[in-house]
Amino acid sequence: MTAPASPSNPASSDPTSSDPGDIEQGTQFQPRFDADGLVGAIVTDATSGVVLMFAWMNAEALRLTLETGVAHFWSRSRRKLWRKGEESGNTLRVQEARVDCDQDAIWLKVSVAGAGVACHTGAKSCFYRTIPVGSTEPAALKRSDP
Amino acid sequence: MTAPASPSNPASSDPTSSDPGDIEQGTQFQPRFDADGLVGAIVTDATSGVVLMFAWMNAEALRLTLETGVAHFWSRSRRKLWRKGEESGNTLRVQEARVDCDQDAIWLKVSVAGAGVACHTGAKSCFYRTIPVGSTEPAALKRSDP
Repeated sequence: MTAPASPSNPASSDPTSSDPGDIEQGTQFQPRFDADGLVGAIVTDATSGVVLMFAWMNAEALRLTLETGVAHFWSRSRRKLWRKGEESGNTLRVQEARVDCDQDAIWLKVSVAGAGVACHTGAKSCFYRTIPVGSTEPAALKRSDP
Repeated sequence: MTAPASPSNPASSDPTSSDPGDIEQGTQFQPRFDADGLVGAIVTDATSGVVLMFAWMNAEALRLTLETGVAHFWSRSRRKLWRKGEESGNTLRVQEARVDCDQDAIWLKVSVAGAGVACHTGAKSCFYRTIPVGSTEPAALKRSDP
């Protein structure tokens, strides 16, 4: 959880700073990538607030996202940079970007282009199933749009 | 990214199943923990939809969350199970739990008890700073509630 003073941090004007107080209260963007060089990104619909997906960004994906305003990610399974919607047309236009207190998670509020579908399964949101709460027995997921 | 047939998966009735189609389209909950035995959890306010925080769950935290309806996490820095709000009183009552397409991310819609504060800094949401979008120059974070 210690912030590495990483030269792979493209958005920080002073990548050597890792003071916890500065990270939490300061105005300097110094994203804290994990051991794999990735930071998690939560994507919500800018209008409805629905959580659409969760994905990972490496430093390049984060830089491209912030520079172009179009969401880019790092595909852990394909091990490649990925502009969301590059094949489907469902690109994600970033309306607002936020970082959390310890700067190891990003939140993007987006508008979905094309068919308005964020999930590769064809669902608008990847979170199309609820998990039962309040039972000690395994129970079935239920399909319902968020 | 391959789903391990892990005995540490308490919520699956058949932890040996790892068929991608079943994981995405089935009704069986088979959370896919990462190499550290963790799954990411997005927490939103059930009323406003605001993203409050992002945290990690091990199998026990996930089980306790689903059984009790109160959010539990795994603290990576303190290396211990953590019932959110156990000290501050700001517990998170789960109104709805969801899982994403490949079952490696959880979304909790919660009601915050106590002072209604989710972040340890005292902010209601951990995402209290925006990141500038559309600039190739490093720019300062701006403090604003989401």
